Amino acid sequence: MNHQATHTASRSLQACIQMCQDCHTTCLQTLSYCLTQGGEHTEKGHLTTLQDCADICQTSADFMLRESHLHQHTCQACAEICLHCAEHCSKMNDETMQRCADVCRQCAESCREMASMHH
Amino acid sequence: MNHQATHTASRSLQACIQMCQDCHTTCLQTLSYCLTQGGEHTEKGHLTTLQDCADICQTSADFMLRESHLHQHTCQACAEICLHCAEHCSKMNDETMQRCADVCRQCAESCREMASMHH
Amino acid sequence: MNHQATHTASRSLQACIQMCQDCHTTCLQTLSYCLTQGGEHTEKGHLTTLQDCADICQTSADFMLRESHLHQHTCQACAEICLHCAEHCSKMNDETMQRCADVCRQCAESCREMASMHH
Amino acid sequence: MNHQATHTASRSLQACIQMCQDCHTTCLQTLSYCLTQGGEHTEKGHLTTLQDCADICQTSADFMLRESHLHQHTCQACAEICLHCAEHCSKMNDETMQRCADVCRQCAESCREMASMHH
Repeated sequence: MNHQATHTASRSLQACIQMCQDCHTTCLQTLSYCLTQGGEHTEKGHLTTLQDCADICQTSADFMLRESHLHQHTCQACAEICLHCAEHCSKMNDETMQRCADVCRQCAESCREMASMHH
Repeated sequence: MNHQATHTASRSLQACIQMCQDCHTTCLQTLSYCLTQGGEHTEKGHLTTLQDCADICQTSADFMLRESHLHQHTCQACAEICLHCAEHCSKMNDETMQRCADVCRQCAESCREMASMHH
Repeated sequence: MNHQATHTASRSLQACIQMCQDCHTTCLQTLSYCLTQGGEHTEKGHLTTLQDCADICQTSADFMLRESHLHQHTCQACAEICLHCAEHCSKMNDETMQRCADVCRQCAESCREMASMHH
Repeated sequence: MNHQATHTASRSLQACIQMCQDCHTTCLQTLSYCLTQGGEHTEKGHLTTLQDCADICQTSADFMLRESHLHQHTCQACAEICLHCAEHCSKMNDETMQRCADVCRQCAESCREMASMHH
């Protein structure tokens, strides 16, 4: 990569780390909210997907913070899992879930971009 | 799946969880050993890969322990990262590194099988 | 420490690592079971405590696997949190919860012993 | 607590979560920097303490994000471990290590405050 490309790559990396950390935070806070709501909010598949998403986002962020050469693998898994979580959340008629879906979709996009930069 | 297939799937799942947990344990212990050795053992790429492998193995095990429907994504990432770690460790002329390489290779195989069961 | 004391300390450490890993596994599996049950099993405080216990057990195990000199702090936190989780689970008239309470109590005891060895 | 006290407590909680997440990020980035330096930067106790600090900061943040009633225990462990990490880093004549020491000290203070609010 030339200097300009390296600079752009580094900005993308920083942005993706931040995105994954925000998504981790949002998913854990949303999960905590869901547990106060009952009904479809406490359905097993829904709560499990939120915890899944929180976990892989943290793992993905940590790989990038370590400057790991293997982060495309965790970014790819993170992109897929964020998309599933976004779909789950967006089906629910609830502002908190819609906000979570938005963050998950943005994180999926950022991770997909990072994963493809390394192939 | 019929009853027999369900039973076999469940046994594979339990085996894969155990394999991921063993690999997490082995990588952290090997990393600790490397830090006492110096030289190539403390090369950045090597230590980072061991921590990467420990992290994704735990994440992968946790998805399966939660009975997540999304574990094929973490199993696939785990298989790739375990293979890289095995290659790294197997290049070093050291019994502890060879043992770590063996565990990583077995974990990669188990995760690859789990990932493919769901496609 | 003399040779005998070192040997005993090392066995206690290995036992405590195993205990924390078993407790992490049991808490995540029990949480997954609770999500299929509804009622008091899906009460927010209950599910949160199980995830808390799973998390600190893993953190505590990882400190010991790294041979960290700071593991008394995580062992002490782990002992307290395991006790809370055991109390929560033991109040529920359900065999799965009783088994989880037993594992948490044993882990609390092992961690309390490890924490006190270093003061 | 009256309304004003609740409001202040909530602001402290948010600040402590952010502090723990910043400290996690800083410790992992500093660890990655240390691995490029060699010498005292790659001494076992030093690298282990940075990983310890990164781990307990994440665990502590996650307890608070889950609104766990047990977060005083993880905040207390986090405060102690951050202080140790700050001491380690501040001994090294290196701007990056001094910055890490500053973040660890601030996180220790924030966690100590959170831990004491619940006794």
